Amino acid sequence: MYGLLLKTRLKPGACDAFMDAMRVNAAASVRDEPGCLTFDVLRDRSDADLVWLYEVYVDEAAFEAHMRTPHFLASRPLVEPLIESQEAIEADLLALNPSR
Amino acid sequence: MYGLLLKTRLKPGACDAFMDAMRVNAAASVRDEPGCLTFDVLRDRSDADLVWLYEVYVDEAAFEAHMRTPHFLASRPLVEPLIESQEAIEADLLALNPSR
Repeated sequence: MYGLLLKTRLKPGACDAFMDAMRVNAAASVRDEPGCLTFDVLRDRSDADLVWLYEVYVDEAAFEAHMRTPHFLASRPLVEPLIESQEAIEADLLALNPSR
Repeated sequence: MYGLLLKTRLKPGACDAFMDAMRVNAAASVRDEPGCLTFDVLRDRSDADLVWLYEVYVDEAAFEAHMRTPHFLASRPLVEPLIESQEAIEADLLALNPSR
């Protein structure tokens, strides 16, 4: 399984607008993509403009497919102007426990 | 909800032994603790000795309770000698989508 942590620095004060678009994309990804297992969004307690996306896909092909979905493509023009910078951490899942 | 990302640098070559103990703790946490919603472990693709723990609790009290469980306490003497350093990133969940 392919895990992605996206450390995302937002423009100051942009978190609410970012989440309006990101909530839709995250929920649709897990609901509609058989290859997307998890898509959570967290706000860093040390910095209100720093959010982390946590995504898990069955493999990299499933992530490539994610980037071709209507919900992903619709979110891009909404979120891109709100992002200052983004760092991608790629990882392999060693343990994935079903969430409650 | 309270999210915790633990960036964990292991001693060189210690990942297998670390996971022997951490798999048990992670699975038991989600299975046995009503307040633990997620507990995943990832290995960074850029560095085989770098793992990330991703944990979600209903609140900080649930995380305090986690640290008093038998499975957490049993794991500590097994994993502590294998950890070089650990950085805790505390966060609030903005979106938690049920994993498949």
